[in-house]
Amino acid sequence: MGPGPSDVPQRILNAGSRPTIGHLDPKFIQLMDEIKLLIQFAFQTQNRLTMPISAPGSAGMEACFVNLVEPGDKVLVCINGVFGMRMVENVERCGGIAITVNDDWGKPVDPQKVEDALKADPEIGILAFVHAETSTGVRSDAASIAAVGKAHDCLVIADTVTAVGGIEVHLDKWRIDASYSGTQKCLSCLPGISPVSFSAEAEAKLSSRKQKVQSWFLDMNLIMAYWEGDAGRSYHHTAPINALYALHESLIMLQEEGLQAACDRHWAMHERLKNGLRKLGIGFLVDPDYRLPQLNVVFIPDGVDDASVRNQLLQDYDIEIGAGLGGLAGKVWRIGLMGHSATEENVDTCINALTNIIS
Amino acid sequence: MGPGPSDVPQRILNAGSRPTIGHLDPKFIQLMDEIKLLIQFAFQTQNRLTMPISAPGSAGMEACFVNLVEPGDKVLVCINGVFGMRMVENVERCGGIAITVNDDWGKPVDPQKVEDALKADPEIGILAFVHAETSTGVRSDAASIAAVGKAHDCLVIADTVTAVGGIEVHLDKWRIDASYSGTQKCLSCLPGISPVSFSAEAEAKLSSRKQKVQSWFLDMNLIMAYWEGDAGRSYHHTAPINALYALHESLIMLQEEGLQAACDRHWAMHERLKNGLRKLGIGFLVDPDYRLPQLNVVFIPDGVDDASVRNQLLQDYDIEIGAGLGGLAGKVWRIGLMGHSATEENVDTCINALTNIIS
Repeated sequence: MGPGPSDVPQRILNAGSRPTIGHLDPKFIQLMDEIKLLIQFAFQTQNRLTMPISAPGSAGMEACFVNLVEPGDKVLVCINGVFGMRMVENVERCGGIAITVNDDWGKPVDPQKVEDALKADPEIGILAFVHAETSTGVRSDAASIAAVGKAHDCLVIADTVTAVGGIEVHLDKWRIDASYSGTQKCLSCLPGISPVSFSAEAEAKLSSRKQKVQSWFLDMNLIMAYWEGDAGRSYHHTAPINALYALHESLIMLQEEGLQAACDRHWAMHERLKNGLRKLGIGFLVDPDYRLPQLNVVFIPDGVDDASVRNQLLQDYDIEIGAGLGGLAGKVWRIGLMGHSATEENVDTCINALTNIIS
Repeated sequence: MGPGPSDVPQRILNAGSRPTIGHLDPKFIQLMDEIKLLIQFAFQTQNRLTMPISAPGSAGMEACFVNLVEPGDKVLVCINGVFGMRMVENVERCGGIAITVNDDWGKPVDPQKVEDALKADPEIGILAFVHAETSTGVRSDAASIAAVGKAHDCLVIADTVTAVGGIEVHLDKWRIDASYSGTQKCLSCLPGISPVSFSAEAEAKLSSRKQKVQSWFLDMNLIMAYWEGDAGRSYHHTAPINALYALHESLIMLQEEGLQAACDRHWAMHERLKNGLRKLGIGFLVDPDYRLPQLNVVFIPDGVDDASVRNQLLQDYDIEIGAGLGGLAGKVWRIGLMGHSATEENVDTCINALTNIIS
């Protein structure tokens, strides 16, 4: 019940331990095709260029930036937590120029600031923001932010690592051009893979690049030759076969439950947790309008020792919760209710354990 | 029995499906420490900077190049197959200048050519070569090549993806400064992770860089803060927990068997395969002195159709063997005897199946 990896259901663990077959085996290629369709479903997109990157969400982030940012490109990055800062690192390591708008940790990205920044510098061609900030438990208004970006002819990159499967994500409706997620949050899958998707407009930028993508491993032109092609698949790297079995299973489970039902469940469990915490006098960092149901960032009560409570939870109750990051270290806990960890049983066990420890 | 992924033993599949715990859980950090020691053992090195990259061997290759090559650096790359060519791509995408020595596909790297090239251009500071070329089944003389590089004050990068666990690898004795391997070859582990190791000299280059490593995800300075540190581990990315359970188990199994015993077994199975193939009139591409026992590249007999035999093996006998790459396509098969796939039963099944199909 930390900020991820979330607990992985036995069904997904079992899928991940099926016998390893070859990455060019016809049966595996069929599974790849199904995975692409399932990721399109999870992202709510028809984007052709949709598939899993064979590495964690951080590599998914890097895939979006190295493919779309060329040296000298101006990128507006919205910072309201750790992952916005990481985006700036990515822009700069691509030789891009990062311009930032900043909101306090615990607050959402302000679309008006984005509007002002894009008006002030018409050379900005890319807008990047984090939909669900795992460091603070904040949900930003992705639809509004993306709309501002598109009104200024930007390519829009959205981090949906913690969002997908937990809150509504609509890449196509919101006109997001590139997004990356992670397996280890609300998909409750084995950590280590990052689903990504690129719009037709992003593909156009990719194919009009003046120089090669700086990463060979993350070059979407090369990856696509393996993940697509009626004319046969050409080897790029050995796919992480078993991790993809598990991803396939987790996406099937999401499809079985339904996106709306999964989101509703996350909200219901958030309410249950909130009510339990209220009785302990524990409140939330984030305003109700911008909370993530799947990541509850709550104030540590006065006089309670952060680390010792987390250690007791882990050792005596087998429950992991997350520490605060950056300026929030020692002030908040991050309680995850992600994917299949978002159950009444988990919420009640956590509340009971906290009650025993704190009271 | 292709060029990888090799067959994964049930024991390793089981390890990979243990319950997922947190990447900062004290029990997981203990496992990480054991993994580092086990990789040091597999590479035969005392290098401090030794750990698994959370992505496949191709990313391990990229980790070596992006960390050690800065724009303008001259790198001598030895090409005798697909993976030498990929190294050139890596050098160039780092802004480095690749100088190449070329040997025919099916031949080993010629240390004399390396010597001549390094003499001709004293500005070359890095030498890169592939120890075990998976595209051709050739073993190059890593000890001699590295010695030439060190005599010319080069940092030496060696691809040991297919080598580790199958043939002798001695990073320290051979004075190799950076190496990457893969889990999916002779470790018989789940595909998707790349053990890497950097010498003290490589670390010195890394810490004297003039600019940041172009990849945030593969920046060893940042990765090390998670994999090391008596002062606590700082979060970089979410580790692929289950894939690392599996890697740990596969390395334990290698340690139980012993490196020499594992190498001996690969040679014995190669002999058995060779004798069986001889009766079918099938010979080897590579001279006996430079063969890889774990990857047998053999000529397709006259009048035998490449694809239809491979399809029959897969469909009727559940055996995968690899096709030839590049100029060898249609001319050779690549029969893997990697890790726990290198058994008498597998060799005999393969020979019997080929006999049935071809005769």
